[in-house]
Amino acid sequence: MTAEQSPPPVALTMGEPAGIGGDIALKAWRRRAEGLPPFFLIDDPARLMALAARLGFDAPIAVIEHPAQAASHFATALPVLALPLAAAIEPGRPDAANVPVVATAIARAVALAASGEAAAVVTNPIHKGVMREGGFRFPGHTEFLAELTGHAGREVMMLAAPGLRVVPVTIHVALTEAIRGLSREMIVAAGRATAQALERDFAIPRPRLAVAGLNPHAGEGGAMGGEEIAFIAPAVAELRAAGIDAFGPLPPDTMFHPEARSRYDAALCMYHDQALIPLKTIDFHGGVNITLGLPIVRTSPDHGTAFELAGTGTANESSLMAALAMAAAIAANRRRG
Amino acid sequence: MTAEQSPPPVALTMGEPAGIGGDIALKAWRRRAEGLPPFFLIDDPARLMALAARLGFDAPIAVIEHPAQAASHFATALPVLALPLAAAIEPGRPDAANVPVVATAIARAVALAASGEAAAVVTNPIHKGVMREGGFRFPGHTEFLAELTGHAGREVMMLAAPGLRVVPVTIHVALTEAIRGLSREMIVAAGRATAQALERDFAIPRPRLAVAGLNPHAGEGGAMGGEEIAFIAPAVAELRAAGIDAFGPLPPDTMFHPEARSRYDAALCMYHDQALIPLKTIDFHGGVNITLGLPIVRTSPDHGTAFELAGTGTANESSLMAALAMAAAIAANRRRG
Repeated sequence: MTAEQSPPPVALTMGEPAGIGGDIALKAWRRRAEGLPPFFLIDDPARLMALAARLGFDAPIAVIEHPAQAASHFATALPVLALPLAAAIEPGRPDAANVPVVATAIARAVALAASGEAAAVVTNPIHKGVMREGGFRFPGHTEFLAELTGHAGREVMMLAAPGLRVVPVTIHVALTEAIRGLSREMIVAAGRATAQALERDFAIPRPRLAVAGLNPHAGEGGAMGGEEIAFIAPAVAELRAAGIDAFGPLPPDTMFHPEARSRYDAALCMYHDQALIPLKTIDFHGGVNITLGLPIVRTSPDHGTAFELAGTGTANESSLMAALAMAAAIAANRRRG
Repeated sequence: MTAEQSPPPVALTMGEPAGIGGDIALKAWRRRAEGLPPFFLIDDPARLMALAARLGFDAPIAVIEHPAQAASHFATALPVLALPLAAAIEPGRPDAANVPVVATAIARAVALAASGEAAAVVTNPIHKGVMREGGFRFPGHTEFLAELTGHAGREVMMLAAPGLRVVPVTIHVALTEAIRGLSREMIVAAGRATAQALERDFAIPRPRLAVAGLNPHAGEGGAMGGEEIAFIAPAVAELRAAGIDAFGPLPPDTMFHPEARSRYDAALCMYHDQALIPLKTIDFHGGVNITLGLPIVRTSPDHGTAFELAGTGTANESSLMAALAMAAAIAANRRRG
């Protein structure tokens, strides 16, 4: 694709149809003038029209046959690639009969991104419990996307908010298991994927990687835990030897205030909450989840299905809007790269 | 003491004399008009005068014999209860020969607070390594103060910044040890001490206590760790049965943004960084460390000796000023209580 052509639209999945995915998609489309890239939703047009009516939104739906039709409709209607639900739903009341449809929406978005017909995939939140009940065998989106693209085991999660990017090296496991599972190899792999993504996807020429310690005060020379000496410092050394500007291990509590954040482009964190606590403390509504290590571009809002807010019009669309904008920006950087 | 009498002054210890304690004490005194309570320093007058000269500060020293003399001098000079160093020091170059003097300053401050001659104790930072080298056998101030007041094992650490108070149930141990050592009893004891302190020291009539989970998403019903079910939820239930408005366990990453913080008066955290990451992310310079569970009032700035800044005039006095103001406020609440 040359720079003159307009880029393909972003594909947005339905997510759990009883959650807030439809609400925030409609709300985001209504704010499309605020710098959003053209996007289309893979969803059930009938349920979206009913939802728009329920919310009292003037949000016409344009059913499209192909992503290429999205751009011409986007200014006047929300483009929807039709995928009918298996069972009618009420906001807030999920039905596991729709799980195969929810999974199909994701698979279709990935296929369109892989073929270049979509610039990127943005996923609306799914509900782990409902998905499991419906026979979905992946812990979450990220693992499913890695499998769909033939990159299982190479996926790395980054969370980004204005002023902070974090990459948790371990994710959705008990904290004791996360610690037990940590290794030099994992930290190095995550560090390499992060540095590559910062260069390619965020156009940062020589990314700086702050590596967190695991223990209070980063172990204080071994007095409060040995992991820093045993494998975190060696991982930092290995990353540096590979030409990556990594530094640490840093005391985890003093690396997230604004002055500290100005010294790095991403923080490599040892466990879920070490990454997520500072991110959500700084910016609860605007965080974006980005899957690194895949051939396609994928982002998602950094929140759940929020069943209690579905159909009420009160769900906050900020994170979805940030995810759509970031997906388009990453895709543009990759095209230029 | 009746409300008509002016309260006694706050005792401030020298801390590590090669660190920034003298710098920030002088800087805080120069800003005494900004709502600081009268305080006196337990320190070596000669070294303070040399430091003030080095910094180019107009900060006269008034050597006092007794805390009762502090108030009358405070407007025009920094009151100092003289305690000569054992070895002359240069800023940034600690000498373990002074460790007994540093420890004596703390013990004297505690004795003055216990007798009511000082309203409270504020401690300047000490350096663990230097103290250990000098034969000091306590892990830190908190344990020493607990022993001096006959309350060993009952000390609880609270960190406070504008808009957030946190109490880590476990503190300066490796993260795996912290998790292994956690128990229902510890959480309940910390919760009781916290609730009592919020009532007595902060004049909050019915304090609300948010209790953090340990694992990502607070374990998600046992799918990511069992500690929440095994003993954190039971601890919350026990606190509630004791009439304390405790709730949780909460997902740790979503409990520290401004809206979430408005729903509680203190967060009970399971480990050091779960408490310290959000606190220092929000307010790196203003945090105050408060020791709960002791008969005397003790606060301290929430930072270290910063040898590299000692004698340069660039050390930030905000946290010390907040610690002095908070110590006086807590002492006033206790007098009224």
